[in-house]
Amino acid sequence: MAGINENFLKLQSSYLFATIAKKVSEYSKAHPEKELIKLGIGDVTRPIVPSVLEAMHKAVDEMGKSETFRGYGPEQGYDFLREKIVAYYKARGVEIELDEIFVSDGAKCDTGNIVDIFAQDNIVAITDPVYPVYLDTNVMAGRSGDYDSDKGTYKRIVYMPSNSENGFIPQLPKEKVDMIYLCFPNNPTGTTLPKEELKKWVDYAIENNSIILYDAAYEAFITEEGVAHSIYEIEGAKNVAIEFKSFSKTAGFTGLRCGYVVIPKTVKGSSSTGEKVELNKLWNRRQCTKFNGTSYVIQRAAEAVYSEKGQKEIKENIDYYLNNAKIIKQGLEESGFKVFGGVNAPYIWLKVPEGLKSWDFFDILLEKVGVIGTPGVGFGPSGEGYFRLTAFGTKENTEKAIERIKQAKKDGIL
Amino acid sequence: MAGINENFLKLQSSYLFATIAKKVSEYSKAHPEKELIKLGIGDVTRPIVPSVLEAMHKAVDEMGKSETFRGYGPEQGYDFLREKIVAYYKARGVEIELDEIFVSDGAKCDTGNIVDIFAQDNIVAITDPVYPVYLDTNVMAGRSGDYDSDKGTYKRIVYMPSNSENGFIPQLPKEKVDMIYLCFPNNPTGTTLPKEELKKWVDYAIENNSIILYDAAYEAFITEEGVAHSIYEIEGAKNVAIEFKSFSKTAGFTGLRCGYVVIPKTVKGSSSTGEKVELNKLWNRRQCTKFNGTSYVIQRAAEAVYSEKGQKEIKENIDYYLNNAKIIKQGLEESGFKVFGGVNAPYIWLKVPEGLKSWDFFDILLEKVGVIGTPGVGFGPSGEGYFRLTAFGTKENTEKAIERIKQAKKDGIL
Repeated sequence: MAGINENFLKLQSSYLFATIAKKVSEYSKAHPEKELIKLGIGDVTRPIVPSVLEAMHKAVDEMGKSETFRGYGPEQGYDFLREKIVAYYKARGVEIELDEIFVSDGAKCDTGNIVDIFAQDNIVAITDPVYPVYLDTNVMAGRSGDYDSDKGTYKRIVYMPSNSENGFIPQLPKEKVDMIYLCFPNNPTGTTLPKEELKKWVDYAIENNSIILYDAAYEAFITEEGVAHSIYEIEGAKNVAIEFKSFSKTAGFTGLRCGYVVIPKTVKGSSSTGEKVELNKLWNRRQCTKFNGTSYVIQRAAEAVYSEKGQKEIKENIDYYLNNAKIIKQGLEESGFKVFGGVNAPYIWLKVPEGLKSWDFFDILLEKVGVIGTPGVGFGPSGEGYFRLTAFGTKENTEKAIERIKQAKKDGIL
Repeated sequence: MAGINENFLKLQSSYLFATIAKKVSEYSKAHPEKELIKLGIGDVTRPIVPSVLEAMHKAVDEMGKSETFRGYGPEQGYDFLREKIVAYYKARGVEIELDEIFVSDGAKCDTGNIVDIFAQDNIVAITDPVYPVYLDTNVMAGRSGDYDSDKGTYKRIVYMPSNSENGFIPQLPKEKVDMIYLCFPNNPTGTTLPKEELKKWVDYAIENNSIILYDAAYEAFITEEGVAHSIYEIEGAKNVAIEFKSFSKTAGFTGLRCGYVVIPKTVKGSSSTGEKVELNKLWNRRQCTKFNGTSYVIQRAAEAVYSEKGQKEIKENIDYYLNNAKIIKQGLEESGFKVFGGVNAPYIWLKVPEGLKSWDFFDILLEKVGVIGTPGVGFGPSGEGYFRLTAFGTKENTEKAIERIKQAKKDGIL
């Protein structure tokens, strides 16, 4: 019989957000009268900005005329978009070449598919808690080893705890690891690394010939100085780091789908015979074989994000979400919660009340308060006892949710 | 050092169409005065039809308003589109359930990514010649074994020759194979299988517990009776077949990007301990983890294809291309070429003149005739001595190309 990829059987549960969606859907069906406020999944609510809409309408019209119709585009993305990305990096002092950029239909696909180009026996390190995609895709790829249900961890994965005790600055692995996933500003904790801390990771990667897979999907939310917007701001990173970017949170593209990955030609992996191979070439081959380019209409939409008008418009939305983050952070703090993140990121990470676990808090919040968040433990064992709220709701809903939480706290429900 | 996926090093050359594009680009640069007619890559030229444009404009407007804005959609695709697909199958007498359909950004991604859910040691069978994606993705996944440069084949892949000697009806493998890729109407040969021939494959798969990966991307081009539009028209297929569909050729979506895959819940693979696992579940998990849904705007575009107006409009384009196919087929036959396909498919497969190889013919056609086609050998060793032309050009260009070929034949150039 045709064999299946048995690594899938090692996956511990269905994808976190799918589980939450199911729980919420079941609760809503049973209690249709309850008005729920969703601050769970990191999905935006602000509509697409006018300059992007305009670009899409124009692109749609082009597709309707023989003279301007576009069929297959380059698998790597159109130059008109890649040029804007190069300029965006340059404005921050980072030199990236056009063919080091690969446009895609989103960072989830890129961070997921990137596992294709690596050796199966590589040792993978992830921060804990972590965006589940990094872990689950490596489980599927056969790099995780078996699951240890006592510890809640996979035996071959190196976990780097990130919690209030270490100020959310994960420690460098003691052992030699090959692939290191970092995400800053961090999902789920909303925290960042100071540049000097990030430098330690780059230095580690150079010393150990590791590759850093750097997810910078939330870069646009950075408000403080001293936080790197790109890992390539760190000396040496262009030899060891792949960077993932997304238009989802930056410009509200969660439903439009566009992202990109940067792979400098200086980043190399090794074959078992010691041959050095450019990861840029491998990824190019992967994309040319398994991908057929991002929709033309969507690439034009992404291009419009970089226009002067586009930048101004998306900035307003980002500020709107950052204001929500402030509302959540301040409100929770006033209620006596211990709260992290929310300054350079749209995520607020809170410690759940003593004696409760993450999923307990999820259930209470859903059933007694009518607010949906994400249980910290869903992001890894070190997330137990924490909870994530996102700033992507409307201001009205965010305020209402915080009022509800404050009231519940007063009423002794929380 | 971080190890790379060494299977990539077994890939024999860059992706076929990328190689052609490079050759053409270099020739064009050296001879800017030459007007080249592209009948090579299977890319459409007719603009997107009005009903689809209208749907996209509407969807773009929705994305611009808070009340109608859509963020993350279901990874499996929106129900509004999946319902149309269910009805489309039903109209041909095939019952497919909604959750057996997974909408994607194109059949190339689906046929490429599907390798993720299978065991690495599965034996893969492909027809020869073949759409390169089936082979290359299995090389990358480590199922090919080493390359035998004398034979031009990979040692662990089972090749099923399809040529004029067997009337383009590939023989069933003598050995037991686990995964069988079939594409009908066929790319590149443009030929089809009668239903009774396709039945033999389904019966083989049932008997041998194999999975058929059935690419029906060109279904809309079928004009003759007795040719299956879906493999599920064959009894038993719902136990053994996965079907891939695309809007690219059907509705000109090569630049918009949409396709879908059908995985009946009755299709199962096996773990090494003999546990039977639904492939539908595995693919669902794969997509939920590594994919974030197809762009909302594009799914609305695809939905419009199924409207009465949409169906009428795309039919006109398909007829246009089929007329081109006729022009090519008749023209080449008048010139004394041996020609296959072109009746139920947008592809014409011709035997190159005696003494020439596929790439020789490519070079002569490019440099002496100004017509770009695809060398048959690029699709596999049994494609040597053949050449593919596509019907996706404009009528004017198609006629001009055929006139040029006729003239070249008269002049003794071909």
